[in-house]
Amino acid sequence: MRGAVIHAPGDVRLEELDDPRILHPTDAVIRTVATCVCGSDLWPYRGLEPIGDPHPMGHEYVGVVEEVGSEVTAVEPGQFVVGSFATSDNTCANCRAGWQSSCLRREFMSSCQAEYVRIPNAHGTLVATDGHPDGEFVPSLLAVSDVMGTGWYAALAAEVEPGSTAVVVGDGAVGLCGVIAAKELGAERIIAMSRHASRQELAVEFGATEVISERGEEGIARVKELTNGIGADSVLECVGTAEAMRQALHSARPGGNVGFVGVPHEVTLDGEELFFSHVGLRGGPAPVRRYLPDLIERVLSGRINPGKVFDLTLPLEKVAEGYQAMDERRAIKALLKP
Amino acid sequence: MRGAVIHAPGDVRLEELDDPRILHPTDAVIRTVATCVCGSDLWPYRGLEPIGDPHPMGHEYVGVVEEVGSEVTAVEPGQFVVGSFATSDNTCANCRAGWQSSCLRREFMSSCQAEYVRIPNAHGTLVATDGHPDGEFVPSLLAVSDVMGTGWYAALAAEVEPGSTAVVVGDGAVGLCGVIAAKELGAERIIAMSRHASRQELAVEFGATEVISERGEEGIARVKELTNGIGADSVLECVGTAEAMRQALHSARPGGNVGFVGVPHEVTLDGEELFFSHVGLRGGPAPVRRYLPDLIERVLSGRINPGKVFDLTLPLEKVAEGYQAMDERRAIKALLKP
Repeated sequence: MRGAVIHAPGDVRLEELDDPRILHPTDAVIRTVATCVCGSDLWPYRGLEPIGDPHPMGHEYVGVVEEVGSEVTAVEPGQFVVGSFATSDNTCANCRAGWQSSCLRREFMSSCQAEYVRIPNAHGTLVATDGHPDGEFVPSLLAVSDVMGTGWYAALAAEVEPGSTAVVVGDGAVGLCGVIAAKELGAERIIAMSRHASRQELAVEFGATEVISERGEEGIARVKELTNGIGADSVLECVGTAEAMRQALHSARPGGNVGFVGVPHEVTLDGEELFFSHVGLRGGPAPVRRYLPDLIERVLSGRINPGKVFDLTLPLEKVAEGYQAMDERRAIKALLKP
Repeated sequence: MRGAVIHAPGDVRLEELDDPRILHPTDAVIRTVATCVCGSDLWPYRGLEPIGDPHPMGHEYVGVVEEVGSEVTAVEPGQFVVGSFATSDNTCANCRAGWQSSCLRREFMSSCQAEYVRIPNAHGTLVATDGHPDGEFVPSLLAVSDVMGTGWYAALAAEVEPGSTAVVVGDGAVGLCGVIAAKELGAERIIAMSRHASRQELAVEFGATEVISERGEEGIARVKELTNGIGADSVLECVGTAEAMRQALHSARPGGNVGFVGVPHEVTLDGEELFFSHVGLRGGPAPVRRYLPDLIERVLSGRINPGKVFDLTLPLEKVAEGYQAMDERRAIKALLKP
């Protein structure tokens, strides 16, 4: 089969790879219906994370089950399934507490930009839809497997409540999905921070009530200006840089909450500053599995359409072009069709 | 009047000071019935915080109102009152949201180890009891003004819930009050970390179900051992050192919560580590004013007795002895009677 392999910064290639097969009785193999390039894939692509030996890429997927291991009974061959970038047995203490992305048997997916994918812990990871969804829903179901699930978690971690004011830091696919989540959870005001016209438009379409193009100290001042000098109830940090975290923490009101879902790169927090801010902070890889049934239902009922974050659709063989377009911010997110 | 003044590390003296008087229409002056030495007073006493010019000390108090400014109508001369170490107008946006210790007009109390004290923002800070309480309740009401209110906040910030498991890091007065709070909020298991026999005993009397004397890596391992390898639902960090924070973060389960109330001294947090821990974190000076009516009621109904943390009672003139005894850990907390 064919799959994407990263060799060096800026160098992603589609190559002939071994077909994945069942290695453990808890595995499944799926035929990929759609996969995509994630903002986090850009860290190694940009040389900001070590690559080491050439290796496959991709952790987002929807597909059709080809084969299951002997212990997998939750899904069966032929079903259309949505999973999470973090696999989970859905039975350990962390899973039972709702933190499937800290499952004791967690394996992060890492080879999904390919025609076929082995899914470890398939029983507790994959959720099948009723029948095969219409093609129009595929992008949104794919979004649910990562960016929409992550935006949802960001909003919950930031404790968005009905009537509250939320700020979203980051206008990538996760930030945009965070706008959807904040709206679904009842935020009255959603302030999106973005300086890109097309992303601003999508943010507004998704429910943002205000858009701020300022950054840094000016961005913080602007948020304060819009919130009676106090700050927002909830802030979704969807980038992962020190600057974005600073923006987020200073945009929250005393007693407010920051949910941070951008994987932190060289972010350190000053304990005393956090203390006196009174801001609550929770982050991490989103426990997408917890939200899958609900989010799939919201997609299939037409209530949300996070698939709109895919503004570039390419055949899998053009995966390199997808990386390049996202790196140059010509595309928000590239969907790949095997 | 007489009041305590710190001159240098290890050098606290009772001196003749000017009587406080009403400076603003929102002030009150109280005659101190009881005050005390706080663990945080030991930072400058130990030379771990700059002292600068000699200055008064103390931020915990209960007393009788002597005089009120023209805008103070919530309390009147002759009433017995309990306040908070952080004054608040109780009307600003932060106060209305329940974060009185981030009041826009906040002033931290700093001269309470004295016979009389001026209370800024008296209207929104002081809560009067029904009549004058019996003397037996005075230590617990004094505790409510700071350590008990702070322990309460730590437990709420750590999201202690009925049936949950809580760990308390720190066996000072705040940590011990944190045990009381965790019990009142319904924790099923309360693991106190202490290696001092008398504090261990008090922790158990207050509701600790287990006591751990190990620290550092061993302490973390012991908590994990007691919690099925996962960690605790809630951790109350009641010290403020980097070591205590590390202990707290590593004792919480994925998705658990750390409430940190020890003023952080040289504590930095690694964003990536916090991210992958899935632990929620909230700290700060406790919004004691929010809890005062409830905690006063719990004290006067005999439900809680946090005054037991005072294991040394001295006349105010022996304030220096109170600092010394706490510094040498001969006393948990020294109550001072003017």
